[in-house]
Amino acid sequence: MSHSADSGDGAFRAIDVIRKKRDGHELSRAEIEFLVSGYTHNRIPDYQVSAWLMAALLKGLSRAETAALTDAMLHSGEVLDLSEFPAPKIDKHSTGGVGDKTSLVLAPLVAAAGLYVPMISGRGLGHTGGTLDKLESIPGFNVKLSLARFREILRACGCAMIGQTDEIAPADRLFYSLRDVTGTVESPFLICASIMSKKLAEGIDGLVLDVKTGSGAFMKTDEDAAFLAELMVETGQRMGKKVVALLTDMDQPLGLRVGNALEVQEVVEVLLGGGPDDLRELCLELAAWMIHLGDRAPSVADAKKLAAELIRSRQAFQKFRELVALQGGDVACIDDPAKLPRANFSLDLKSPANGFVASIQCENVGTACVILGGGREKKEDSVDPSVGIILHKKVGDRVAPGDSLCTLLYNSAERAAHAKALLENSYRIADSAPAPRKLIHRIIPAQN
Amino acid sequence: MSHSADSGDGAFRAIDVIRKKRDGHELSRAEIEFLVSGYTHNRIPDYQVSAWLMAALLKGLSRAETAALTDAMLHSGEVLDLSEFPAPKIDKHSTGGVGDKTSLVLAPLVAAAGLYVPMISGRGLGHTGGTLDKLESIPGFNVKLSLARFREILRACGCAMIGQTDEIAPADRLFYSLRDVTGTVESPFLICASIMSKKLAEGIDGLVLDVKTGSGAFMKTDEDAAFLAELMVETGQRMGKKVVALLTDMDQPLGLRVGNALEVQEVVEVLLGGGPDDLRELCLELAAWMIHLGDRAPSVADAKKLAAELIRSRQAFQKFRELVALQGGDVACIDDPAKLPRANFSLDLKSPANGFVASIQCENVGTACVILGGGREKKEDSVDPSVGIILHKKVGDRVAPGDSLCTLLYNSAERAAHAKALLENSYRIADSAPAPRKLIHRIIPAQN
Repeated sequence: MSHSADSGDGAFRAIDVIRKKRDGHELSRAEIEFLVSGYTHNRIPDYQVSAWLMAALLKGLSRAETAALTDAMLHSGEVLDLSEFPAPKIDKHSTGGVGDKTSLVLAPLVAAAGLYVPMISGRGLGHTGGTLDKLESIPGFNVKLSLARFREILRACGCAMIGQTDEIAPADRLFYSLRDVTGTVESPFLICASIMSKKLAEGIDGLVLDVKTGSGAFMKTDEDAAFLAELMVETGQRMGKKVVALLTDMDQPLGLRVGNALEVQEVVEVLLGGGPDDLRELCLELAAWMIHLGDRAPSVADAKKLAAELIRSRQAFQKFRELVALQGGDVACIDDPAKLPRANFSLDLKSPANGFVASIQCENVGTACVILGGGREKKEDSVDPSVGIILHKKVGDRVAPGDSLCTLLYNSAERAAHAKALLENSYRIADSAPAPRKLIHRIIPAQN
Repeated sequence: MSHSADSGDGAFRAIDVIRKKRDGHELSRAEIEFLVSGYTHNRIPDYQVSAWLMAALLKGLSRAETAALTDAMLHSGEVLDLSEFPAPKIDKHSTGGVGDKTSLVLAPLVAAAGLYVPMISGRGLGHTGGTLDKLESIPGFNVKLSLARFREILRACGCAMIGQTDEIAPADRLFYSLRDVTGTVESPFLICASIMSKKLAEGIDGLVLDVKTGSGAFMKTDEDAAFLAELMVETGQRMGKKVVALLTDMDQPLGLRVGNALEVQEVVEVLLGGGPDDLRELCLELAAWMIHLGDRAPSVADAKKLAAELIRSRQAFQKFRELVALQGGDVACIDDPAKLPRANFSLDLKSPANGFVASIQCENVGTACVILGGGREKKEDSVDPSVGIILHKKVGDRVAPGDSLCTLLYNSAERAAHAKALLENSYRIADSAPAPRKLIHRIIPAQN
């Protein structure tokens, strides 16, 4: 049969590919393509793929296997060709955190530097927020554009921000759905292939990876985060892309606001030159790497100065306004963030003691926001853009009894009580300030 | 819902049970029951069970988990209650080999000793033969009896031999089918639960396990065979049964005949006091253990003498005739095995050299028999009862060029050519005789 001959599927059996991985042997590129293509086209049943996924999780994949898996998933769908665009295409991807709204700052900021930022993002799931949910808190903002319209906006404004489309890496969607219900999400190899296949489908030249580490990240330790970061960097490099990964702190929320509209407010603050120090600093650092990878500055330090200047001159803010307008969003909400959706009620969580904030269990803050309605526990859940948490004290801050640690913004008293109870158990107050954690733990590959 | 409450299923999620095993933790009995019952009743999909099976294969199961899995599969269906029978119920199970026809000798022999042998057996699959296929080479012999009829024959004659029924351990059938296509057959823990759940459903008091080791066995090394044997013995003991395992040699075929009707001929020879030494000796040894477990002799040595006497006196042979008649088989074929199905053609494989038979690749002999039509490669294949292989030389025998090593009995010249080519590569002739291998490598638990 010509079909089998074309795809090479005739040469393999799924059972043999499963056994080979089960026994710890390295699969060939053709075997991995057979698996991905076979599952995507319904020739291999899910029960065989799930057994393979568990074997892959427990036995690991080599670098070559990881790259082959990424490549097979990438080419399961459309790969954007942006080569006609007259400047490098650079994107950023974060492994997910709490209060991480850097994408909304970076897309216009890096576009203002003359690069293209074709950003295809995800929604929040679990305790982490999602870029699309944040954007959709701006009334009218449309993240469900066709790839053709995405390209138009990208050409016009230098950046565009949409959600996954059916055309991009369909194999990853199938694999991810199966991983989600078979206990096979937590493999750095599978995570790498999932992330990199989607990002490389954007037709980019370079990618900055923000790999989070700490109590609010999926990777709780620097060791695990560095392993994943190195894997993604090498996979991207094997596929001919410029890739750098920053291991950044997610042991407490980034910035002071967690929740969709609340985070857009903070984005506007940063784009206007203000905002919390940690958020502003991380945005400048990530922007600098993107600008440097895109050859718009000879060094990261120069790129960082350029980024700061683009903020100071309001060019980045104007670019954000332009983007919002092109994607149908209400620009009045950007000019006056008070017009963004606002929750009806608020309550404060007070410090019970005198001392210093020693730690904030960061995942709990994300979960509290989900409980308030600001995220989703199941994919089908709808999101309330207005609710969230404003932090008044962060790690290292001095507190006195009765000081407000944070304010919960809510629309349901029952949800607020539940979220408050969780947050009460998430702040640790101690007699002395903890040793400060660095915002950026490591850069991979190491810079000399 | 009362159903959930009854089964306890409401307390667990499949994803958590998968993750727990994936991370190497021990599952509770209730978690394992949830999994088995959930899969059997279609509440847990196959893709979750296959991920769990792979995790179980790679991470292993504890003794308690193995016993719980066995118990859950056992109680997924009917468990025979033979307590009203006036003597112990003892069975034997073999892990499968080539030329292994001991079950057909043991059932009547041990029944003649006054015990009950309720034997539920399998068919050949892969290179190993199956008891049911051998019995069915006796014209009219019916292995597809209801459990009610099985019980009647057992009461009347002390032994009965049938195939799996839908009522016995249905969970094992489902799990086995899934394991077969997901690369999760080769786990001693899963093998143990599969074997023991089916055997213990027979309502037996004691079980003798014949765990094969060598080139014709599933377990190629004594180490692997001993691990499985110890697991099965402990699992049976945890469930209150008397269990002993004999590690026996399967590095060359057992006896001289491989093929269904050919093996029945050899069974008759042994029951009449003749037959090849290795087969007769193994039958006496296994029978002795069965008789000893059934308290019909104070020692294994005494039991062995009793078994030999039951053969010498023809009581065992008469019991076999009685069994064949009760199950609808043509007794004339037992009285004169020349009346059994016979293949139309034969050819000899000649020794190419002078020397000694140094080894016979035993799995190949089984596969050659399958190629001739005497076994099945797929479950749906039909079996030709008449074909097979008669060995003239076994390991250690002296050979001269042109001596017949074996005779192939066949009905298809094409199949015969293919089988012959395989057998030609399966005999190794050397200048000196190899060190003899013991027939019984080890007994578990060790006897003092």
